[in-house]
Amino acid sequence: MAEGEIWHGGDLGTARALFSGAPEPWIDLSTGINPIPYPLPPLPLSLWQSLPEAKAEAALLMAARRAYLVPGGAGIVAAPGTQILIELLPRLKAGGPVAVLGPTYAEHALAWRKAGLAVSEARTAGDIRDAATVVVVNPNNPDGRVLPIAELAALAARCAARGGLLVVDEAFADFTPGISLIPTLPPATVVLRSFGKTYGLAGLRLGFAIGQAATMERLRAALGPWSVAGPALDVGATALGDADWLAQAGAARAADAARLDALLARHGRVVGGTTLFRLLATPEAPALFAHLGRNGLYVRRFQNEATWLRFGLPGDDASWRRLELALASFVPAPA
Amino acid sequence: MAEGEIWHGGDLGTARALFSGAPEPWIDLSTGINPIPYPLPPLPLSLWQSLPEAKAEAALLMAARRAYLVPGGAGIVAAPGTQILIELLPRLKAGGPVAVLGPTYAEHALAWRKAGLAVSEARTAGDIRDAATVVVVNPNNPDGRVLPIAELAALAARCAARGGLLVVDEAFADFTPGISLIPTLPPATVVLRSFGKTYGLAGLRLGFAIGQAATMERLRAALGPWSVAGPALDVGATALGDADWLAQAGAARAADAARLDALLARHGRVVGGTTLFRLLATPEAPALFAHLGRNGLYVRRFQNEATWLRFGLPGDDASWRRLELALASFVPAPA
Repeated sequence: MAEGEIWHGGDLGTARALFSGAPEPWIDLSTGINPIPYPLPPLPLSLWQSLPEAKAEAALLMAARRAYLVPGGAGIVAAPGTQILIELLPRLKAGGPVAVLGPTYAEHALAWRKAGLAVSEARTAGDIRDAATVVVVNPNNPDGRVLPIAELAALAARCAARGGLLVVDEAFADFTPGISLIPTLPPATVVLRSFGKTYGLAGLRLGFAIGQAATMERLRAALGPWSVAGPALDVGATALGDADWLAQAGAARAADAARLDALLARHGRVVGGTTLFRLLATPEAPALFAHLGRNGLYVRRFQNEATWLRFGLPGDDASWRRLELALASFVPAPA
Repeated sequence: MAEGEIWHGGDLGTARALFSGAPEPWIDLSTGINPIPYPLPPLPLSLWQSLPEAKAEAALLMAARRAYLVPGGAGIVAAPGTQILIELLPRLKAGGPVAVLGPTYAEHALAWRKAGLAVSEARTAGDIRDAATVVVVNPNNPDGRVLPIAELAALAARCAARGGLLVVDEAFADFTPGISLIPTLPPATVVLRSFGKTYGLAGLRLGFAIGQAATMERLRAALGPWSVAGPALDVGATALGDADWLAQAGAARAADAARLDALLARHGRVVGGTTLFRLLATPEAPALFAHLGRNGLYVRRFQNEATWLRFGLPGDDASWRRLELALASFVPAPA
């Protein structure tokens, strides 16, 4: 891992380098990606051959509008993953300084810093002080903190008055749609939604920004045409139109999350999380990370929060069993 | 088609709207995409499920370095299509004004204009005058004009001296690698290569920039992590490593291009083109475009060159036959 680089989950190459000799196959619990993916529909060769068609993009955006309850007058833009939208948001030339409600997904602060803006981390909404642009991940990654819609609306009004922008990253909101700011979208607000986590297809690369129509038009111009691959347009439109699958997946993953909480509670305090990951706080975190790694289980540790470990959901019986055995065989250091 | 929008090929929705009632299936000759795609390798579900792995990206870049003969000290970055790299190039803060050697692919000039730089179109390299940054599509789309490597190197030196950049878009250079500027990459130069055209997989979205290592690091930072989808990393690495397929495809498409030239020569002057498309000049171009459209054949016309039509290669016997019949039944207007 290069110096200064942000740590991410999801790269088993890193896990193998850290724990050579660990039993294969590795079990990747380092992300918040649904381990039971949406079943891929058949993908005709034409989706790969031709440039992505305007008609297919329109169908995807229509499905996304319905799934996310986007108000009629608002705009929506699709991108090859939410990450690139995070990179492009500073091009909207919103006023600074920027406050990021943290600790959270580190790429937000980095993107605004790369664009030359002053960025500070606020620990609470009351701690935002003079920021004109505010970034909130809601529910938050990794601790699952949720800001009420009324509080977000007040923040948006504050940002609007200062010539800034409220960015709400709802990457993990699909299973708790009641907390979304999209249906009551305030002015000067951009909401991000991710496809790959909920639908278990992070390799597909698909994400959305929702906001005022003119603002979204500028994001779309920054991306240029054909940024989303043909297969992603097709899979996205099918999956986002499948409300039954979403409801069933939400119930099943919530049961998994409760099962995981019960396991983790023996090893520390479960601080929170979302339906797709749980956050454990324990002074034993570094030792537990290493113990799990030696057993071929990769979880997420944090650069600035040494007592935290984030656990994604195991995806099958074998993975649950290996996690249970590894946790049971962990011997904390003597106090 | 919205006012002010750039015309592109490859969207049959536009063709169907222009010529409702034309016989289906439409034959799309409006792009320069190889109609015989690289055979898709099996794509394990894990490529769709997980975030694209650093190891897979490294394998793709290694295959691209070999295929494009990238010098050891140079940098290379992969993106979800060349288009987004075109959008991001102005973020390298190269000096203006900008000259685009035209007429050519219109998105280059648009991207620099959107970034606030003055852009002019030069008709020859001698006509570039005070530009610090120069964009050359080589071979050029749509007329196939090729600038010699020595002339490009001289242009690069000129741009370097003025604090600018030479951008060489080699989207159609795969079948004529001898014209590429990559093996002798001069300073202050960025070369773009496209995957989807040669390999007939434009829906996959994959493109590359090659240049000085520090400059490519900045482009990579602008894209952020995971911009290329997992399946694209895998297909790209396999296809770019398959020199035999490239040689055979090049020979087959060159034969197709010669066959197309023979057909078109009866209807005007074949101005040029590349292995993947041919450019016809005729005062009958608007009438011929409409005649072909009514017959379900979509070719590329040009906003500012009313006498030009660009023809992609038919991909099977039925398509060749329909093109031959439609051309044979065209009756030019009386002089």
